[in-house]
Amino acid sequence: MNCHFHLRAGALVLAIVSSVAAADTPRSVQRWDVFQLELPGPGDGNPFVEVRVSAVFENGGRSVEVPGFYDGGGIYRVRFMPAETGVWRYETKSNRWPLTGQSGTFEVTPAAKGNHGPVRVHGTYHFAYADGTPFQPVGTTIYNWTDTPEEVQEETLKTLATAPFNKARMLLTPQPTPYQKRFAPPRWPFAGQPPHDWDYTRFNPGYFQHYEKRLAQLRDLGVEADVILFNPYGKWGFETMSAERDDAFVRYVVARFAAYRNVWWSLANEYDFLRTKTEADWDRLGALVQASDPFHHLRSIHNGSLIYDHRRAWVTHVSMQNGSAVEEPGRAELYRDAFRKPVVYDEVKYEGQSPYRWGNLSGEELVHRFWCGTVAGTYVGHGDYFLVNEDTWTSFGGRLKGTSAPRLAFLRKIMEEGPAGGLDPIDRWQDPRVGGRPGDYYLIYFGREAPTSWPFRVYKNGVTAGMKFKAEVIDTWAMTITPIEGEFRAVKADNYYFVDAQGRAVTLPGKPGMAIRLRRVGPDGHPAKPGSLIDPT
Amino acid sequence: MNCHFHLRAGALVLAIVSSVAAADTPRSVQRWDVFQLELPGPGDGNPFVEVRVSAVFENGGRSVEVPGFYDGGGIYRVRFMPAETGVWRYETKSNRWPLTGQSGTFEVTPAAKGNHGPVRVHGTYHFAYADGTPFQPVGTTIYNWTDTPEEVQEETLKTLATAPFNKARMLLTPQPTPYQKRFAPPRWPFAGQPPHDWDYTRFNPGYFQHYEKRLAQLRDLGVEADVILFNPYGKWGFETMSAERDDAFVRYVVARFAAYRNVWWSLANEYDFLRTKTEADWDRLGALVQASDPFHHLRSIHNGSLIYDHRRAWVTHVSMQNGSAVEEPGRAELYRDAFRKPVVYDEVKYEGQSPYRWGNLSGEELVHRFWCGTVAGTYVGHGDYFLVNEDTWTSFGGRLKGTSAPRLAFLRKIMEEGPAGGLDPIDRWQDPRVGGRPGDYYLIYFGREAPTSWPFRVYKNGVTAGMKFKAEVIDTWAMTITPIEGEFRAVKADNYYFVDAQGRAVTLPGKPGMAIRLRRVGPDGHPAKPGSLIDPT
Repeated sequence: MNCHFHLRAGALVLAIVSSVAAADTPRSVQRWDVFQLELPGPGDGNPFVEVRVSAVFENGGRSVEVPGFYDGGGIYRVRFMPAETGVWRYETKSNRWPLTGQSGTFEVTPAAKGNHGPVRVHGTYHFAYADGTPFQPVGTTIYNWTDTPEEVQEETLKTLATAPFNKARMLLTPQPTPYQKRFAPPRWPFAGQPPHDWDYTRFNPGYFQHYEKRLAQLRDLGVEADVILFNPYGKWGFETMSAERDDAFVRYVVARFAAYRNVWWSLANEYDFLRTKTEADWDRLGALVQASDPFHHLRSIHNGSLIYDHRRAWVTHVSMQNGSAVEEPGRAELYRDAFRKPVVYDEVKYEGQSPYRWGNLSGEELVHRFWCGTVAGTYVGHGDYFLVNEDTWTSFGGRLKGTSAPRLAFLRKIMEEGPAGGLDPIDRWQDPRVGGRPGDYYLIYFGREAPTSWPFRVYKNGVTAGMKFKAEVIDTWAMTITPIEGEFRAVKADNYYFVDAQGRAVTLPGKPGMAIRLRRVGPDGHPAKPGSLIDPT
Repeated sequence: MNCHFHLRAGALVLAIVSSVAAADTPRSVQRWDVFQLELPGPGDGNPFVEVRVSAVFENGGRSVEVPGFYDGGGIYRVRFMPAETGVWRYETKSNRWPLTGQSGTFEVTPAAKGNHGPVRVHGTYHFAYADGTPFQPVGTTIYNWTDTPEEVQEETLKTLATAPFNKARMLLTPQPTPYQKRFAPPRWPFAGQPPHDWDYTRFNPGYFQHYEKRLAQLRDLGVEADVILFNPYGKWGFETMSAERDDAFVRYVVARFAAYRNVWWSLANEYDFLRTKTEADWDRLGALVQASDPFHHLRSIHNGSLIYDHRRAWVTHVSMQNGSAVEEPGRAELYRDAFRKPVVYDEVKYEGQSPYRWGNLSGEELVHRFWCGTVAGTYVGHGDYFLVNEDTWTSFGGRLKGTSAPRLAFLRKIMEEGPAGGLDPIDRWQDPRVGGRPGDYYLIYFGREAPTSWPFRVYKNGVTAGMKFKAEVIDTWAMTITPIEGEFRAVKADNYYFVDAQGRAVTLPGKPGMAIRLRRVGPDGHPAKPGSLIDPT
């Protein structure tokens, strides 16, 4: 073939493609939904490495260049998540004629009910959806669920539909599991022959199409997908690719997934166990995710034994494995100060019956850890490590067996009834049992203590004499909330504290796992309005 | 005046100065002592800003350029701390003729007893002197002691001569104290009129000469001087200088003090309360200290409420204010992981009777915090906040009144008898009560627990079946060490632990503040050799 022929053939295809694209391209899309351009183009050679395609989207005020990707069968796609309503225009760019210069307009309509946009960091230590709705993660772990028999995947979705979880950590590339000794993974991310003969320059679009289907289903269930790009477990070779292939993998995945509003990027699980990569590699890859994602999804990296430098600019929040840090709230709050970002204790050991101590917490202990993290102004993640369907929920989904989930639903409801901006330590480094908002809201968790009485006492910040508070006693395990008769009226006790004017105390049942909720009584005699929309940042 | 005249006058002075300098320059100096060049030069104009002087020192293998400084009265000095014995040659450089091109040789003799060189970071989380002698900081706080009546300063030195402290935190510029309401500070760091009319371009050499005298006295007592360059307290203007004057101040101080081997640089106390400076300013100043100090002393920055990003390259170790972090060892170990540097909890509240909660710990509580930090593989600092001599030890030295110091001497002895490389968490994130060296040495601190028995149990790392251990019961308050009869022989209990072959336990007295020391018994029937010299790094 010669260049002249190429050029003419390309021009011819362009004419055809343009009309096809125009016909197939949707005319409108919901705000924060996926607007997809489908672009026929060259299928010969290796389109994954030879063809670059992107589109510029603009609405008059804003212009965003969005990278596209090859989806196999001669089809290229560019996916756009519009952040603003109104008319948008697009125009494609490529190093191949058929994919260049295609343009059109579409309308972005307001988000429907339940679509709050992507989650962002809010107020240094917390999260909110793009529309300002608070997001308080109550996450779970289903590492390999997309890689299990179809009926288990469906069961997983059914479980999530009624479970308390609004975030799920999931691996992107397969991990060997006991189940896989009987069933080989049904699909692989790269072209080639399992288990080790891969062409890392060619992705398997079917693998990602399947994964995307699951991402969309999680989204429709209100579950954020914390997608883990690299993991040390596979041993199929995906963890030891060259830097060039790692970069290409990141670009491909981000181009495919970034328009799904519920995607979070978790660069790696137990990154430090992936010994072929250095911290400089992770910094490069993290910065690449940041640079490649036009929609700025949350980015984190999850540790094994060595904690990452979460102050790095590309890291949006701390994804921490350290169970000991949520054994009591005084520990949990320390990493907030160290990193000045939201802290999500994504792995605090699992509820279960593993012979290993990372997977044999009691339900009570896991619930305790959630409460410790919560009053410290951090967030905690769940895992269920009981054998079900030949493996565990945490490893491959299916159904839950532990006793913590209903208590986490109870906690989540309390969190959602709390201040829109989340909880912060009220008297930091002094009384870590108390999280809240000064003067308005206090959640006091007594943990392993078993007090029979709590003399009313609040730290001075935000409090003035005469303020009135209503108290409720919360049993975190029995899931009861018992209002206390009457009101507490604040009077100054000393340099630091206000106490009740009549010296009253809250009576407690003398058992562990108890909490108190204090809410200031407004002028109408009712506690302040519970958590709702906040100004988006 | 014209340039020609200047040049000839300069050349003439040079000839005279060279012979003077040769006569006054010492012919030999001890390794890591101060070798000082005294150089007469121009005293007119403003030598602090107009004259630059330095000297290059070389010994054949190594060449170090050392900045000098103007010491008033027409005298310039260059101070050199030689790190290697043998013959060294120097040659001066300057932008003024009389100070240029002076050269000579001198001999560096071996360090005498008690001179171990400067302290360096050793083994990521610990310290050692340059000669490899372990250094385990047991620090105290005497912020304004150089600025008190002479007799109080002398009393401070007498106290330190028998106190357990091997490090002292001290401000460089004055802080208003109750005592100063009666006595104005005897000297000021800048030329001008107190309290606010300063010429920031002219230092007061007498101020620094006095400070250096105290540095040398601390050195001779074996006390590291943790010199705090900036503080938010003065309100005399030294805390709100321009960036240019801050930089000049840092350069001047480093040129003066860096040859004192016991100097540590603490960039600021409660840096975040110094609201005229940004974190970028602190990074600039920290990097400037690093670049200006040819002898690479330790560098840190101390927080108020906002914790610094101690991962920054210029920070050698963490200087932390957070009392809550050493209330139990499980908290104390967390910052080690976050920053991967030695952690010194320099301010954990003070023993004392302050009406404020930062200064009213009991002696028992402060000793408890030291032990928590110690078994967590970190270091803790002392303060004594009882009124003595119209002020407190922590504010201005004098004498101690608290009850903790003898117990810290007891602890320091135990630390120094321990492993040369310091203590690390033995079973990190699992049993924070235990610090030590796997298989060799265990220090178990029970804190507020009051057990009556401790069934022998050690984590598997470094342990093999059949190893024998001797145990001692330590009362951290009564300062007793009680050996337990017989030996414990390790047998594997499960995935994680070894226990005693005969199921023996250590009997404890059922009160708080108890510890156990386990040492492996060597082939000669005695515990391994206690801490001594380690390979310097």
